[in-house]
Amino acid sequence: MPLYERILITGAAGRLGSELRKGLAPLAKTIRLAGRQQFTDLAPHEEAAVFDLADMEATIAATAGCDAIVHFGGAPNESPWQTILDSSIRGSYHIYEGARKHGARRVIYASSVHAIGYHEVEAHIGIDAPVRPDSLYGVSKNFVESLSRLYWDKFGIESVCLRIFSSFPEPADRRMLWSYLSFADCVRLVEASLTAPRVGHTISFGVSDNKVKTIDNSGANHLGFQPRDSSEPFRAKVEAAKPPVDPKAPSTKYLGGWFCDLSHPDDLK
Amino acid sequence: MPLYERILITGAAGRLGSELRKGLAPLAKTIRLAGRQQFTDLAPHEEAAVFDLADMEATIAATAGCDAIVHFGGAPNESPWQTILDSSIRGSYHIYEGARKHGARRVIYASSVHAIGYHEVEAHIGIDAPVRPDSLYGVSKNFVESLSRLYWDKFGIESVCLRIFSSFPEPADRRMLWSYLSFADCVRLVEASLTAPRVGHTISFGVSDNKVKTIDNSGANHLGFQPRDSSEPFRAKVEAAKPPVDPKAPSTKYLGGWFCDLSHPDDLK
Amino acid sequence: MPLYERILITGAAGRLGSELRKGLAPLAKTIRLAGRQQFTDLAPHEEAAVFDLADMEATIAATAGCDAIVHFGGAPNESPWQTILDSSIRGSYHIYEGARKHGARRVIYASSVHAIGYHEVEAHIGIDAPVRPDSLYGVSKNFVESLSRLYWDKFGIESVCLRIFSSFPEPADRRMLWSYLSFADCVRLVEASLTAPRVGHTISFGVSDNKVKTIDNSGANHLGFQPRDSSEPFRAKVEAAKPPVDPKAPSTKYLGGWFCDLSHPDDLK
Amino acid sequence: MPLYERILITGAAGRLGSELRKGLAPLAKTIRLAGRQQFTDLAPHEEAAVFDLADMEATIAATAGCDAIVHFGGAPNESPWQTILDSSIRGSYHIYEGARKHGARRVIYASSVHAIGYHEVEAHIGIDAPVRPDSLYGVSKNFVESLSRLYWDKFGIESVCLRIFSSFPEPADRRMLWSYLSFADCVRLVEASLTAPRVGHTISFGVSDNKVKTIDNSGANHLGFQPRDSSEPFRAKVEAAKPPVDPKAPSTKYLGGWFCDLSHPDDLK
Amino acid sequence: MPLYERILITGAAGRLGSELRKGLAPLAKTIRLAGRQQFTDLAPHEEAAVFDLADMEATIAATAGCDAIVHFGGAPNESPWQTILDSSIRGSYHIYEGARKHGARRVIYASSVHAIGYHEVEAHIGIDAPVRPDSLYGVSKNFVESLSRLYWDKFGIESVCLRIFSSFPEPADRRMLWSYLSFADCVRLVEASLTAPRVGHTISFGVSDNKVKTIDNSGANHLGFQPRDSSEPFRAKVEAAKPPVDPKAPSTKYLGGWFCDLSHPDDLK
Amino acid sequence: MPLYERILITGAAGRLGSELRKGLAPLAKTIRLAGRQQFTDLAPHEEAAVFDLADMEATIAATAGCDAIVHFGGAPNESPWQTILDSSIRGSYHIYEGARKHGARRVIYASSVHAIGYHEVEAHIGIDAPVRPDSLYGVSKNFVESLSRLYWDKFGIESVCLRIFSSFPEPADRRMLWSYLSFADCVRLVEASLTAPRVGHTISFGVSDNKVKTIDNSGANHLGFQPRDSSEPFRAKVEAAKPPVDPKAPSTKYLGGWFCDLSHPDDLK
Repeated sequence: MPLYERILITGAAGRLGSELRKGLAPLAKTIRLAGRQQFTDLAPHEEAAVFDLADMEATIAATAGCDAIVHFGGAPNESPWQTILDSSIRGSYHIYEGARKHGARRVIYASSVHAIGYHEVEAHIGIDAPVRPDSLYGVSKNFVESLSRLYWDKFGIESVCLRIFSSFPEPADRRMLWSYLSFADCVRLVEASLTAPRVGHTISFGVSDNKVKTIDNSGANHLGFQPRDSSEPFRAKVEAAKPPVDPKAPSTKYLGGWFCDLSHPDDLK
Repeated sequence: MPLYERILITGAAGRLGSELRKGLAPLAKTIRLAGRQQFTDLAPHEEAAVFDLADMEATIAATAGCDAIVHFGGAPNESPWQTILDSSIRGSYHIYEGARKHGARRVIYASSVHAIGYHEVEAHIGIDAPVRPDSLYGVSKNFVESLSRLYWDKFGIESVCLRIFSSFPEPADRRMLWSYLSFADCVRLVEASLTAPRVGHTISFGVSDNKVKTIDNSGANHLGFQPRDSSEPFRAKVEAAKPPVDPKAPSTKYLGGWFCDLSHPDDLK
Repeated sequence: MPLYERILITGAAGRLGSELRKGLAPLAKTIRLAGRQQFTDLAPHEEAAVFDLADMEATIAATAGCDAIVHFGGAPNESPWQTILDSSIRGSYHIYEGARKHGARRVIYASSVHAIGYHEVEAHIGIDAPVRPDSLYGVSKNFVESLSRLYWDKFGIESVCLRIFSSFPEPADRRMLWSYLSFADCVRLVEASLTAPRVGHTISFGVSDNKVKTIDNSGANHLGFQPRDSSEPFRAKVEAAKPPVDPKAPSTKYLGGWFCDLSHPDDLK
Repeated sequence: MPLYERILITGAAGRLGSELRKGLAPLAKTIRLAGRQQFTDLAPHEEAAVFDLADMEATIAATAGCDAIVHFGGAPNESPWQTILDSSIRGSYHIYEGARKHGARRVIYASSVHAIGYHEVEAHIGIDAPVRPDSLYGVSKNFVESLSRLYWDKFGIESVCLRIFSSFPEPADRRMLWSYLSFADCVRLVEASLTAPRVGHTISFGVSDNKVKTIDNSGANHLGFQPRDSSEPFRAKVEAAKPPVDPKAPSTKYLGGWFCDLSHPDDLK
Repeated sequence: MPLYERILITGAAGRLGSELRKGLAPLAKTIRLAGRQQFTDLAPHEEAAVFDLADMEATIAATAGCDAIVHFGGAPNESPWQTILDSSIRGSYHIYEGARKHGARRVIYASSVHAIGYHEVEAHIGIDAPVRPDSLYGVSKNFVESLSRLYWDKFGIESVCLRIFSSFPEPADRRMLWSYLSFADCVRLVEASLTAPRVGHTISFGVSDNKVKTIDNSGANHLGFQPRDSSEPFRAKVEAAKPPVDPKAPSTKYLGGWFCDLSHPDDLK
Repeated sequence: MPLYERILITGAAGRLGSELRKGLAPLAKTIRLAGRQQFTDLAPHEEAAVFDLADMEATIAATAGCDAIVHFGGAPNESPWQTILDSSIRGSYHIYEGARKHGARRVIYASSVHAIGYHEVEAHIGIDAPVRPDSLYGVSKNFVESLSRLYWDKFGIESVCLRIFSSFPEPADRRMLWSYLSFADCVRLVEASLTAPRVGHTISFGVSDNKVKTIDNSGANHLGFQPRDSSEPFRAKVEAAKPPVDPKAPSTKYLGGWFCDLSHPDDLK
């Protein structure tokens, strides 16, 4: 018997959402896929919910009947303020209000390395380090981390905020040799977050078992996440394609990488 | 010669803003008072800027020519989400954009104890403790603390986020025996924040030199703030008026006090 | 109106108990003095309870009607095991059972530096340092610190465990230049422990404001204890009478001083 | 040649004692089994010592000729005060006096998770966290941890205090998915404690290599204990038999589990 | 009767040495002044020792009969490697060998802020922070801090290493508003280091009680140093003479100030 | 294509240098071997540089054309001061000056456990623990750790300081059961230090994956070093040959082992 009755996955059409859609199937009787466009390939255990996160009423309605929410929707990258505000800040508030009003037990949220992107690589920060966002995108992640803490402390809704590092098909540069999170490990991380007996409010980093390690995730060991993949198989390819890095460059010095080099997104409009 | 050319004070008509208006006069040639209603009593060194923080264009315009901003505007208390969003989240973003576009050197922000209200009294947290907001109001404070960190790390604008505890004419209950910040000490704290040689991005608690101390503010000692007042003169009056507290009640256990007992502000609508 | 109805002081005939008897009078309508021998000089606000702490029934009975207990009774020094067991371990259990059965709100317990006597002077330990007793006496202090923690966490009885350093009429050797706690400061410490709005379970060191400081008591700042005395007025006298110490001797190296040199008390029988 | 001449095992007839009796055989020429009843199945390398731990003379006598003591005797569970006092507090004092008088080099003591049972699961405490017992049983564990520290610092007897979590044939509920210590791992832990080159005074947690981890045992890595078992093989069975837990219940929130729900043992008499 | 028989002061003709010569007079029967040139103004309680610290034999000889050494000699500033090597590294080794061979009890060494000059101002480092020298001068300070630790741990010679910040007649720039150590406080610091009952091996920062504080010296509180001076009386003068600083400049960001801007001293030859 | 153009290995004829000469071959087009005597067995990819580290000019010249330096030269053991000074202190300064003048990108330095040899085994120190050398040899290691920090912070030359524990063909005593670093793991450690994308200034312990662990190297996890060997295969042999240790002896208590028992090397002349 699955652990959950119905899991809502937001951002279900996205890069990671597509992986989760497959990987989380055993955990619930029904998976409700949320996105801004119709899903055309629903499996029997799936159902769709099409709406914009910026729409409070629709978002709250979409959470009805869900005892767990995997919230991977919202702006997937640094974006203009209005996008961040509508999709990530307002949208996430709507999700948490849905959880509160409809009694979801647990929310798994896709936070990001960019929530703490201005910490230095050698600092080996733990999950309790003060926030240091490297972008408006990162600021919005901090907002939801704070909001979800309130919803746990005051309203008893458990949350896991996953600070995902670099979850791509394969590492694309030398930084990803340590920041890589394989799709399979990403699914394992969400699965662990959904099945751990108690999570309260937990922040966890999300990286594979890469050889070079730059953070201390021991504070989240109660999730029971054990990565099985590594960037090593891709090392030779990456090192052949990418020159050694400048050790004094911000994109090398800080966890956030090239996000630290981005200018303000509203300056580009 | 004053340190600053022109200081913008938002929330200048408020309880603390009125005190700052007087107290900060020596620090700038001009004090620009911001509020939603006209100021009728401008002194020669003062000028007014009337606008709503939710208006991006007007807010940014109001920061022109200011080399320092004392941002005490926004929702002064727990409020419905739409108010928090417009006044405190969007409004503060507008202020920081103004600072960035018009070259303000330093922003002093009125954060609050409610940004970390769910920490226990005996934990004696320092300024680096993880956020634990006790209200949407507190969440919005965390948002600005995060945003201002980005504006320092990436754009070089210095900020001091002052987690003001209970700044009222006098302590109103037994909790305020330790959370009291006198108006005079509040002004001293802002003054220190404006005059310290370098603040980078600093978070500081704001309490007077009360006998009972519940936090560790040593991480902000580079501000040079030295409180001179205390709640002791009011102790007898408070103890006579208020019964001893229940040591197991949330409002006694946590720094945030009765904010921890508040229900969700949107449930009252 | 005093804060408490009736305070029980155990060890009331002892060196510190006699001071507390006077000093705490303003805090309760009635002070109940506990000792093994009759008190012959009761003031109108005082009453006596004569019993042996090793007698469970009598001890529990003596706590009836007391909303606070100041537990300074028990073996006052390193003693044979049977004495430690009866007076300090069993006796303290009886006190806490009395508190639980008769509803005392708060217990102030005379723990001791000897509970952590094997920590090094330069370590500047805080109140959370692991226990390192230097004697059976110290072990019994750890026992009560542990017991009182249980009675708070499970039964809601607040406790303050005061690790008193050297409370004598004046410093007797060079170590006491930093370990001295004047009688007046000792009374202030107990008074603060009784009047702080909330103490939960607190461990606090007890030393005066001596120039040389060897511990960090900031974790107990919520008691509001502010020592006013110092060993400085006695320095010249002590230095003239006592030669410089050997920096490598255990009695100099460790907080416990000459207790570290004591042999096992049962070997002397 | 075995490392020890003779190891005394107290509680040798108990659940864990029976396992140790087999597992530790290779470490000593002779294993002396201590219990309150005669052993009827002694192997050639075994000898029996029948006595009550509350009997000081008999207990000290039983330690003669032993260069190591594995002290697993005493009350095995929350018990009335008189039982805790006689078996666990007085009994353990007798064991340590035996060690001191007869020159045992090392004592391995069965402490318990209940010595720190009121710490929160997500706190991931290390071995140095302050004590927070969840029962009189836990208080007695703290007593022996303190006593053994004294016997190391002052008398040079090494001790390892093993805070055993849940050592049963298999995990019985969802909490044991993280608190499980297999019998084989328990034996490995005691073996490592006996064979590590130097232990001084060490406190170590005792859990298997379960997927969900709730503590940080790195401070005891000098024991060389490497668990090999896990609760995973039992997960499906446990999850099928036991419903999900309430994340806000004390028995879920704290390491001590259902011990936190127990009332005072003397109230049941 | 003075505490010491004879104190050797190296660098006695220097800026701070001249102050110490006067200030320490009450602490010893004889003050032996060491320098490279003859002293022409010896008081009755003074004697001279003229030698070069680079001369091992002469330096060791100069320590004979001294039970305390105040070692303020060596290169007073960033200097070419050969100077640092001869005066500060080799010279200090000679001093410690003298202490060891002639039985000095305690050495007070003039280390410097430049031993940890590359730590950030807002980090509020304690005395245990890892070394981060900002110059060859700072490296030589680390060398002596390490050497003196060995001489304590292995040879039992106590040392206090004073990381003096900016000890000048008055603050010369905005950084000195927090780094200022008055001459009188400097003497008090050395005096406390000489008179504290036990120092073992202690590292202490040396700053006056300035309003803006950038370090945490609590780990050295066992010295009993209490600064009485402050940079405040000089603030107006400094602020009038010096423009506000660039918050992102290395000389503002790091404790070492303008030393961080110095190029390699051997490049100037 | 190898990562480096040319790697200079100092001490290339030594015990570890010989291993590195073989193991690092794949990492550079050319390996330059430095020693005081001619190398008679150069492979085609090798070249020799014969000089004394005490000779500044020759040492600097030998670094020309090298983009990486593996500095394992200098006194290999506790030695008289003059040897330590010339080979280890002055010699290492010459190496770093060579790196600076000729533009080497990264230096890997053979520091030692003896840099922190007076820390206690049970303290489980991390890489940031304060220095506590156990010998002049250890002091010289601290000197280079400090010097290399300066060359990173000020001149941008990356360094890894490897605190090698006991790198011998096999463990020779019971301490080496935890301090053993196999030759193969030593090569892996240097290789990881040379190939990690960014090291800045990193201190790392060097031990194999021994069962008994006494340090916390997590702060160096960004090197990507994963030991594969262990002392376990040698345990039986060591335990048979060496008696159990005295737990109170300095050589057992401290990480530095028998170095803590060495007298001053200059006393033997």
